[in-house]
Amino acid sequence: MNGAQSLINTLVDAGVDVCFGNPGTSEMHFVAALDTVPRMRGVLGLFEGVVTGAADGYARIADRPAATLLHLGPGLANGMANLHNARRANTPVVNVIGDHATYHKRFDAPLESDIEALTGSLNGWTRRSNSSADVGVDAAAAVAAAQDAPGRVANLILPADVSWGDGGQVATPVAARVPATVDETTVKSIAEVLRSGEPVALLIGGKACRETGLRATSRIAKATGAKAFAETFPSRIERGAGLPTVERLGYLAEQVSYQLDGIKHVILAGTKAPVSFFAYPGKASDLVPEGATVHTLADVAADAVGALQDLADLVAADVEPDLAPEHRPELPSGPLTPQNWVDVIGALLPENAIISDEANTSGLLLPTATAGAPRHDVLTLTGGAIGQGMPVATGAAIAAPDRPVINLQSDGSALYTISALWTQARENSNVTTVILNNRAYAILRLELQRVGAEAGEKAKGLLDLSTPDMDFAKIAEGFGVPATRATTAEELADQFARAVAEPGPHLIDAAVPPLL
Amino acid sequence: MNGAQSLINTLVDAGVDVCFGNPGTSEMHFVAALDTVPRMRGVLGLFEGVVTGAADGYARIADRPAATLLHLGPGLANGMANLHNARRANTPVVNVIGDHATYHKRFDAPLESDIEALTGSLNGWTRRSNSSADVGVDAAAAVAAAQDAPGRVANLILPADVSWGDGGQVATPVAARVPATVDETTVKSIAEVLRSGEPVALLIGGKACRETGLRATSRIAKATGAKAFAETFPSRIERGAGLPTVERLGYLAEQVSYQLDGIKHVILAGTKAPVSFFAYPGKASDLVPEGATVHTLADVAADAVGALQDLADLVAADVEPDLAPEHRPELPSGPLTPQNWVDVIGALLPENAIISDEANTSGLLLPTATAGAPRHDVLTLTGGAIGQGMPVATGAAIAAPDRPVINLQSDGSALYTISALWTQARENSNVTTVILNNRAYAILRLELQRVGAEAGEKAKGLLDLSTPDMDFAKIAEGFGVPATRATTAEELADQFARAVAEPGPHLIDAAVPPLL
Repeated sequence: MNGAQSLINTLVDAGVDVCFGNPGTSEMHFVAALDTVPRMRGVLGLFEGVVTGAADGYARIADRPAATLLHLGPGLANGMANLHNARRANTPVVNVIGDHATYHKRFDAPLESDIEALTGSLNGWTRRSNSSADVGVDAAAAVAAAQDAPGRVANLILPADVSWGDGGQVATPVAARVPATVDETTVKSIAEVLRSGEPVALLIGGKACRETGLRATSRIAKATGAKAFAETFPSRIERGAGLPTVERLGYLAEQVSYQLDGIKHVILAGTKAPVSFFAYPGKASDLVPEGATVHTLADVAADAVGALQDLADLVAADVEPDLAPEHRPELPSGPLTPQNWVDVIGALLPENAIISDEANTSGLLLPTATAGAPRHDVLTLTGGAIGQGMPVATGAAIAAPDRPVINLQSDGSALYTISALWTQARENSNVTTVILNNRAYAILRLELQRVGAEAGEKAKGLLDLSTPDMDFAKIAEGFGVPATRATTAEELADQFARAVAEPGPHLIDAAVPPLL
Repeated sequence: MNGAQSLINTLVDAGVDVCFGNPGTSEMHFVAALDTVPRMRGVLGLFEGVVTGAADGYARIADRPAATLLHLGPGLANGMANLHNARRANTPVVNVIGDHATYHKRFDAPLESDIEALTGSLNGWTRRSNSSADVGVDAAAAVAAAQDAPGRVANLILPADVSWGDGGQVATPVAARVPATVDETTVKSIAEVLRSGEPVALLIGGKACRETGLRATSRIAKATGAKAFAETFPSRIERGAGLPTVERLGYLAEQVSYQLDGIKHVILAGTKAPVSFFAYPGKASDLVPEGATVHTLADVAADAVGALQDLADLVAADVEPDLAPEHRPELPSGPLTPQNWVDVIGALLPENAIISDEANTSGLLLPTATAGAPRHDVLTLTGGAIGQGMPVATGAAIAAPDRPVINLQSDGSALYTISALWTQARENSNVTTVILNNRAYAILRLELQRVGAEAGEKAKGLLDLSTPDMDFAKIAEGFGVPATRATTAEELADQFARAVAEPGPHLIDAAVPPLL
């Protein structure tokens, strides 16, 4: 058994049985070894940003990591932006990064580069496998490291000769570090804060945004009068009819300032204290209201869900959570607007959907429109590195082939990882992509005003995507995905309904004008 | 004057008057400042890999750096692969990397990451600007650092508050380190090697691949019987009728072994000793023939062109270089093949063309077909990180708007940076892209054999781009570039002739089957 075979066998034994990849010469023995391990599924991406984003989306839905296969430093670099997003989502990912053979590195061949410098910037876990005999053990350690609470990016660097060399040994899985239990004293002290009579905000994140955490959060809020919020960009939040609706903190500091107005205590469960996404001249970076105290019920590595349940039992013993009623918006009519397209989605969202949301400014009104739609998951842009929505949708569809995946995707961001469409076509994934094509980096138009910069024609030109106009339907068809264009709400409704009813991927290029 | 304005003024004073960019919120003041400095041209890319690759292509043709504008760590990461290629090309590039405001970094906002870890891996120059008053001086230093011989990637990290803060001061340009002159003793000792009577190979690289260096090289070879070769992947090599033809070393170790068979001395001028691109089981990494001695006439930072001229004057005083005669292949007919498409290019290559060559396996026969075509430049994939050809073509066209740019582009690599087409359309660039669409990662099929891996169906599937087939003409039209599809040599000839005759970008999706 060679190193690659022992590596793949170890991965599948540890529950990692999907590998998103874009290989090169140094990974050819890994690729060949796939045929010797039937349990491992290989999924090809045409660009590493698709590969890593798909691994992120997969794990958010499957609750276990996928592997990636990346080609040396440049392949890793291409995947870094979505690994940054995965890091911010605390998503477990196992990167297998091929490298030159151990003896070849000193020759500084053209593709030689400092891989560890790149992996180091991910604040995760990195190991270089030094022999074929060790790579199994290293792989088992990588899978555990990826899943150590709260989850992280684990990088296993695999020199080509370690991959092709004989003497590989399959290693047994290693247990990952589970979330730390929050002690009773902490829970009781937080209960005291809630009973203080002062205005309290309860801010939840991570796994607390799933049903169990949401129910406990709703009970606490209902019993104590605390305002409950989910973090601005949750990795995965469960929503819809029959679940508690927990409003997300806004992206704009101005929104958060409104949401937290008058708050004296901020309680954190599975997330960090809110900060401004960017700095703005003369505005605060820290979004905790002045004079308010921050209390940590559970940090991101702790068992926030258990702590919230304990807390609910203490302060809301007999209280039931408030659940969103079934409610869908009416189907709108007329030309598409930032206001009406979300109602189409709310009206027609299929049962048990997964929404990969990179709608950015176009999606500001989406949460209201979908609050009473059938229960669904929303995966958000956790790290702010655009180009995440399409790959995350692709990976989510691999993790849950029977669920409809809806990718609500702004135009500018779509172009970072547009070839994800091809992987969707290849895998016949049930992904419906709606491009919110406002022909601009609309968020930057907004930000240009917010930072107080005076914009002339050249500046405005750099935020414009209309010269020339892009035809996303043609691009999608070029990648093998059936596509249509919608300019009215009726067209969008008709095309969306047909797209989700038909198996396989679809794309709708929706001419939604910018919000501003 | 704010920091951004002083930065841009300093750049243009130092000769950097094109900025390829993809900005974000932290760069909005830089974007706004563009309108206050009319001499600076801003060119938008839809993805940072396009931005950095365009800067590389621009400088290869303009012989001075462009600036880039990148959005924090993830924006830089997206541009890293083509910066890797620029590093290997010794291309001067000035990256302006926006960062959070100095006081905002400690809040670890979602887009916070370790930018210096990434820039460090480029082995270039990096400085973080700490105040608006310093940013002009820092920019002048960055331009000089980029141009220090032989050229490198210079990174200027620009915090948002340094950009928007007042007190900016325009700095005067700083002189860059020029190539070191090679001393007479070295030249004489190399002349002795050439006179030894033993078989010698003269290997040139960098600027020695331009006319002056090529003429000296040809004279030396002709007078002494040395075999002359250009490095495998020159940044820019001048070719065609009226210029000496200097054969490039092959990509495959087997080719190099044939080319250097029997050689006892390898003389280096502006390049390094040849090494295998990858390691292969049981094969040597060092491609210098066993027992041969390596002599350095000029290392990559030295004045190889001057040294070659001095050497030629010493060993070939009265010898004229051999110049390629005008010769074009006959226009072929019939279905496209790896053999005949290159003849179409050779037959129809316009005067004074720039070829951005990322044809990979499809282009193996290109050099012969174009050897007697009108004089042209070829820009190659210097660092092996695929996705370079389209951005490099885009940047080259900005540098030389009156020259026809021909992008010979393999399908798999095209998809890394396909949105470069949109920038070409926006700038109305005279780029004709020919996609060599063999529906596979054909080079990896070859490499799979060369590394001795046994491939099953899953492995083969990961190298296949035909399920589904991609329609590059549709993709191009989606990006606003007129496109056609060719399946025969006649169609390719007809479409190519029309594309180069018409202003603006064009794409031809050419169904050239794989070589193997």
